[in-house]
Amino acid sequence: MALLVQKYGGTSVGSVERIEAVADRVLKHKQQGDDIVVVVSAMSGETNRLIELAKSIQATPDAREMDVLLSTGEQVTIALLSMALMKRGLSAKSYTGSQVRITTDDAHGKARIEKIDTDAMESDLASGKVLVVAGFQGADELGNITTLGRGGSDTTGVALAAALKADECQIYTDVDGVYTTDPRVVDSARRLEKITFEEMLEMASLGSKVLQIRSVEFAGKYQVPLRVLSSFVEGEGTLITTDGDQNMEQPAVSGIAFNRDEAKLTLKGVPDIPGVASKILAPVSDANIEVDMIVQNVSVDGTTDFTFTVHRNDYDKATAVLKQVADDLSAKEVITDDKIAKVSIVGVGMRSHAGVASSMFTALANESINIQLISTSEIKVSVIIDEKYMELAVRALHSAFKLNDPDAGISEV
Amino acid sequence: MALLVQKYGGTSVGSVERIEAVADRVLKHKQQGDDIVVVVSAMSGETNRLIELAKSIQATPDAREMDVLLSTGEQVTIALLSMALMKRGLSAKSYTGSQVRITTDDAHGKARIEKIDTDAMESDLASGKVLVVAGFQGADELGNITTLGRGGSDTTGVALAAALKADECQIYTDVDGVYTTDPRVVDSARRLEKITFEEMLEMASLGSKVLQIRSVEFAGKYQVPLRVLSSFVEGEGTLITTDGDQNMEQPAVSGIAFNRDEAKLTLKGVPDIPGVASKILAPVSDANIEVDMIVQNVSVDGTTDFTFTVHRNDYDKATAVLKQVADDLSAKEVITDDKIAKVSIVGVGMRSHAGVASSMFTALANESINIQLISTSEIKVSVIIDEKYMELAVRALHSAFKLNDPDAGISEV
Repeated sequence: MALLVQKYGGTSVGSVERIEAVADRVLKHKQQGDDIVVVVSAMSGETNRLIELAKSIQATPDAREMDVLLSTGEQVTIALLSMALMKRGLSAKSYTGSQVRITTDDAHGKARIEKIDTDAMESDLASGKVLVVAGFQGADELGNITTLGRGGSDTTGVALAAALKADECQIYTDVDGVYTTDPRVVDSARRLEKITFEEMLEMASLGSKVLQIRSVEFAGKYQVPLRVLSSFVEGEGTLITTDGDQNMEQPAVSGIAFNRDEAKLTLKGVPDIPGVASKILAPVSDANIEVDMIVQNVSVDGTTDFTFTVHRNDYDKATAVLKQVADDLSAKEVITDDKIAKVSIVGVGMRSHAGVASSMFTALANESINIQLISTSEIKVSVIIDEKYMELAVRALHSAFKLNDPDAGISEV
Repeated sequence: MALLVQKYGGTSVGSVERIEAVADRVLKHKQQGDDIVVVVSAMSGETNRLIELAKSIQATPDAREMDVLLSTGEQVTIALLSMALMKRGLSAKSYTGSQVRITTDDAHGKARIEKIDTDAMESDLASGKVLVVAGFQGADELGNITTLGRGGSDTTGVALAAALKADECQIYTDVDGVYTTDPRVVDSARRLEKITFEEMLEMASLGSKVLQIRSVEFAGKYQVPLRVLSSFVEGEGTLITTDGDQNMEQPAVSGIAFNRDEAKLTLKGVPDIPGVASKILAPVSDANIEVDMIVQNVSVDGTTDFTFTVHRNDYDKATAVLKQVADDLSAKEVITDDKIAKVSIVGVGMRSHAGVASSMFTALANESINIQLISTSEIKVSVIIDEKYMELAVRALHSAFKLNDPDAGISEV
């Protein structure tokens, strides 16, 4: 008998019919003898409806009141799902975040979980109840309602699984697992049976929007086995777990991630002296602009070029900041470009396989795709290219690393 | 500087525009130097929407989960109104029932308030905040969300006013006060400036649906001055207060109440022996049928006739129960009629004025309206008549007691 935490997102509970389908699935698991804690999001569309209401009153709604408002979305779902479970003869009980006592800090709209009280839940589980918990929400020490930010229901699921020492945290979503890359771009994209937390983090942060990054970090930190499954199609999904499977040959590259949400800014001819990087980035960060890639090459003639990428929404703001910085540092010029895409190969196997990066560059060169920027980490190589080549690059890399073949590794490339 | 508790119902907060109008009104009172606690209902239509959702899942939704579901309605309103107040430069803070710590019993769907913790509210009021409290809801000792039943927001308002020792509890609604009778029936119906709690109770229970009866009882018990006002039209409304105005000549009759929601059932020829009334009514009450009027006249030849009225919705059920009772008691026959109306005159002045009842009967006789049943209390006389004469009876009584003339009393009839 296992203890499972199952999280269902907004689409999975988007209508009464879908809530009934979730109840059927929970019933099946319960009949197999498992204990179940269900975490649910607001019905799809509801959160946006509430945000619209708020914005029609206050352009920038008060953060505390916004949380009071938004937390009603999940509260509706827990009540409805509990009813659907009872209709099936199960004993069920709903919990709001406050009722669980999911204690968070007081950062409304992006609160962090500090503590979860499991006493009440454990006693209810022991009595055979299915628990239905509102995702995305908690309360601070003073009892003010907080929310964890968009996608926070995943975080709730993982945090509950960790606190309750669950055997698995299952994230039900509208995709049936994590793929080697986006199937809409590459026909032969393949579902991965397993992926490590680190790989998943790189895939998620690079735009494979299956799981919220915080929930993966959380699951990794507390070693909660995480499984991504479809609410609509039966299947095993993808298990995200620690890199413990040492006796299996790990393919070098697990997946190809990409996005075209970024813009690139370069400051040319800055004096190559200590502290110059922080002189460039501090004003950017002061303007609340998040920076993704940062690249600085070796200097020539005492000056160097400094490049970084930001979200496209911040492109204009970042450009303005950088022009000011260029004046202050007497840099030669500012070059910016928002017609770029970032493509990355991700895989823990890279650590032990030489030549992965060069295989990547060769594959791109074979398609005459020029690489504008390169950045690497232990388990990832990212390049910035012209956005018009993005799909072509993804397909070329997916094929070069034989990702449609589950048994292939870099050694065969 | 007064402390006012203002309660706004569902229609008054039924749209963003109306919420903004409520915020304008609160701002005006705040600018006049008053401290304000606002109690709000769910936006009109929302509660019904949630009930529909629940019923589409469970024909008889679980009571605990229903409260979890329904309480979201007011939670949305408190957040939106708080935002609207902040937009106007006011400092505002929302409270759910749980956050106030409105402790109730655990009778989900019809919970009774047991205790209200005022510490947090008093400290927030002292710091100049407008408090926006969710009506209709509380939590039991274990933290389970409860609701007070339909119309419970009035009760919340009065209970908060009592707990906070407010100067007045103002109930904003879609009518501008309590009238001598329904203006849709009698053109010359007049708004009362003042009415006693007891009169209001009789008016409310008889179908003048301005205030929930529990809130009036509560206000009377705790001596909270209650004022009914319109959210849409400026005005003084009607003040409901204790009968303390002794130096003013009290008119005998304050208003005419009526309804046609009842049905009448008579058991003829029952043996007039001790315990027979309870033998008749116990099965009715066991069938969860509420009885309104009960009339038994003196017996003739050792048998008597026993009549009572029930809500028309319970007419068929009550008839079936009564036929069984008739068999058990060997009663002569059961006579039932659901084409009836109840018309009542209400007024504390009756106590000291003789002849009020006979004036009533004379006025009805003058219109050739036959009286089927009579029931009286200290401050009310009710009659049952054929429903087709209801409007005629109401107009005749309104005129007979000169209710269109604020200075008239029974002595002049």
